[in-house]
Amino acid sequence: MNVFRTNKIVYANLYRYSTASKLQSKPIISNEVSARQKLYITDPLSPGSIFFLPNGTKIFNKLITFMKLQQRRMDFKEVITPLIFKKSLWEKSGHWDNYENNMFKVDVVDSTKEIYGLKPMNCPGHCIIYNKFDHSYNELPIRYSDFSPLHRNEASGALSGLTRVRKFHQDDGHIFCAPEQVKSEISKCLKLIDLCYGKIFKFGNNSNAAPYTISLSTRPKDHFIGNIETWNYAEQILKDVLEASGKPWDLNEGDGAFYGPKLDIMVKDHTGKKHQVATIQLDFQLPERFNLRYKDRNNTLQTPIMIHRAVFGSLERFMSLLIDHYNGKWPFWLNPFQAMILPINTDNALQVDTCKQLHRRLRGNNEDNEVPVTPNSFQFDVDIDERSEPLGYRIKDAITRDYSFLIIIGENEVKNGKCSVRTRDDRTLNYLTADEIFETFSNLEKNYK
Amino acid sequence: MNVFRTNKIVYANLYRYSTASKLQSKPIISNEVSARQKLYITDPLSPGSIFFLPNGTKIFNKLITFMKLQQRRMDFKEVITPLIFKKSLWEKSGHWDNYENNMFKVDVVDSTKEIYGLKPMNCPGHCIIYNKFDHSYNELPIRYSDFSPLHRNEASGALSGLTRVRKFHQDDGHIFCAPEQVKSEISKCLKLIDLCYGKIFKFGNNSNAAPYTISLSTRPKDHFIGNIETWNYAEQILKDVLEASGKPWDLNEGDGAFYGPKLDIMVKDHTGKKHQVATIQLDFQLPERFNLRYKDRNNTLQTPIMIHRAVFGSLERFMSLLIDHYNGKWPFWLNPFQAMILPINTDNALQVDTCKQLHRRLRGNNEDNEVPVTPNSFQFDVDIDERSEPLGYRIKDAITRDYSFLIIIGENEVKNGKCSVRTRDDRTLNYLTADEIFETFSNLEKNYK
Repeated sequence: MNVFRTNKIVYANLYRYSTASKLQSKPIISNEVSARQKLYITDPLSPGSIFFLPNGTKIFNKLITFMKLQQRRMDFKEVITPLIFKKSLWEKSGHWDNYENNMFKVDVVDSTKEIYGLKPMNCPGHCIIYNKFDHSYNELPIRYSDFSPLHRNEASGALSGLTRVRKFHQDDGHIFCAPEQVKSEISKCLKLIDLCYGKIFKFGNNSNAAPYTISLSTRPKDHFIGNIETWNYAEQILKDVLEASGKPWDLNEGDGAFYGPKLDIMVKDHTGKKHQVATIQLDFQLPERFNLRYKDRNNTLQTPIMIHRAVFGSLERFMSLLIDHYNGKWPFWLNPFQAMILPINTDNALQVDTCKQLHRRLRGNNEDNEVPVTPNSFQFDVDIDERSEPLGYRIKDAITRDYSFLIIIGENEVKNGKCSVRTRDDRTLNYLTADEIFETFSNLEKNYK
Repeated sequence: MNVFRTNKIVYANLYRYSTASKLQSKPIISNEVSARQKLYITDPLSPGSIFFLPNGTKIFNKLITFMKLQQRRMDFKEVITPLIFKKSLWEKSGHWDNYENNMFKVDVVDSTKEIYGLKPMNCPGHCIIYNKFDHSYNELPIRYSDFSPLHRNEASGALSGLTRVRKFHQDDGHIFCAPEQVKSEISKCLKLIDLCYGKIFKFGNNSNAAPYTISLSTRPKDHFIGNIETWNYAEQILKDVLEASGKPWDLNEGDGAFYGPKLDIMVKDHTGKKHQVATIQLDFQLPERFNLRYKDRNNTLQTPIMIHRAVFGSLERFMSLLIDHYNGKWPFWLNPFQAMILPINTDNALQVDTCKQLHRRLRGNNEDNEVPVTPNSFQFDVDIDERSEPLGYRIKDAITRDYSFLIIIGENEVKNGKCSVRTRDDRTLNYLTADEIFETFSNLEKNYK
């Protein structure tokens, strides 16, 4: 019996954990959707660091690809930066004074005998890059993006699933700009946030509430650096941008970082609890600490303003919110289970073969291994279930596993060249050719549906 | 003067370091091509860890995308795994005994008081994943791929550019399979290696020599584990696969790892010096140490064989070999400088506007920021030079900077709707419409040319 001929790993394992009773009797991971769909695991040998399984990795990568594409249009340049830096960098950035207990120390046997820190943030690394070159006003804004793994020490007792972790990734970005550019940069960031939360992921779509809210956090009462005029100027800019955006926002008086005011974007989970996702922070401190400079129109050296921003925020936390938001019913473009192909009669070679042809077509695998798979082509996550089980059983099983589409091929389908295609969400049934299926899937993926 | 209106960061900085005298007077990085093209930098605050600049990151990402696509067809499943693990994992894997001095220790304040190690390899993490689930023979082979950053301690004096580093990435993969599957798995790995080195990157194409050679390293004379029959069996499999492949190979008697025999793939740099790139290693030890099991057809528990394999090997080293191989003349698909668009008369609004339209089209940016950039579309790395400098000067400058194509638009081009397109390599001149340029570029990228 060749039960799991195609994609057998995912398939067989998913199957094993697909029933509720199994889940109760052997809970591998706390999150029910993740257990059913095998998205990630954790292990006591590395508490707080997620192991993304193949299905979770697919979603993770799709999110990053989405963000890279949007950021590229905004002229963000991706960089890849080191993970460990000498203590002297963290002293310069202020992390050693303010953040030491949250950082992991690394012992590097070196002539300098200096302790290293495993990075909790990307900003100092980006300042190093900025400082390697001379800059002129006409190069600004300079926008770096980075998807590095970051580490922060959380007490092991507090660690939990995707939300309280020690290792995480951000869709991190730093903008180095002149004061007069801050407004337009923040406005662009807010547009991307709106695109993301309002149009693509549509948080809050179960109610009439806004998909997200924005909080403006202003100068702390006592503990802040810089002069009050600069603070007032920066806060006014943020208020102006918020007013111009027409989005609802509220004021968190005195809740800004000590180095500058910030905007936090919040979404609600299905219980109504608010979570911070995106953030936009103005920073006047790091550019001074790192002595960052650019030449203005008069050839005078000036200090740029730094904007820290992330749209998803922590990818790990964002994924946990998506799991909550969709409850495992992933939209097609994010779904690791895009379609299941089912031959009606698994003993019928013609039906099975037709299924396999369609499978290869939709997965985007050319048959000739001597020729490389081409980039920028569609590769859908499609499986075949050709187990010798009754069709009804296999259909039910595929539905349990949240496939977006069921494609059923029997005698009629082979004869007519059309497949029965059933959707997960509204269970409509269509008869489509292979070309039409490919077209349907491509349009869904292109439109992030 | 608005010198660098488009892609100004890259552009301005490239320009700054484009002359030889500058390079000699201010060598930021050792490698001349990298300095000219701004591919990467290093910094004493993190010796041995590369900072990939935006151009280097583009090449790095293209290589990874290429490999992910090929591996997907071979049913590799990508996973994302932790970077730090408790000492007890490294003791179990044998790294603490055999590799401790090459590993960085991480202090994690934890109730267990256990030291952590920053991972030098992905294999133990993949064993943890394998062990989270029960496995049956019909799920094998299970193939995990991983692009995690890895750290190995190298003495600071030995560190050099991309070749001797402390932080690096591999296109790492581990195959867990039954003994009878080893042959076909290794054969598939060799096919991918051949596709990669023989057909895509064409190492050794300056001579009649083979693009790569293969060495078989067999059982060490004294220091080995396991029984000799298993070794002989494994070595015979490797020999059989090599013979069947028809590729040249040589024997490194006694040079295998202590846990199993291996194949190393070597390419030559332009001076004729050999470098190891890909590797395929059979491992009988880790599966035992981690107690990995699967149920065979008779429901008996068996230990799978583990194959460690990488095709590029270290991405950092592979990139240094590519820099050497192409000497900065990147093929179109890898080139961070795919095309430069030049208006003949930079004061002519119509010419400049036509250039900008083409620029947007080739970069794949839709104009409406309210609509997301779609996936699986072509986005070429195209720049505009609209500085008010003579055309000849700007052409020469773009040639110096290794653009694959120069696209020149003047009065005639605007009128006829065709652009003058000149290739870098053979300097042929064609008159093409925007559609034809897009088509030409897409075909080059699709075919990894």
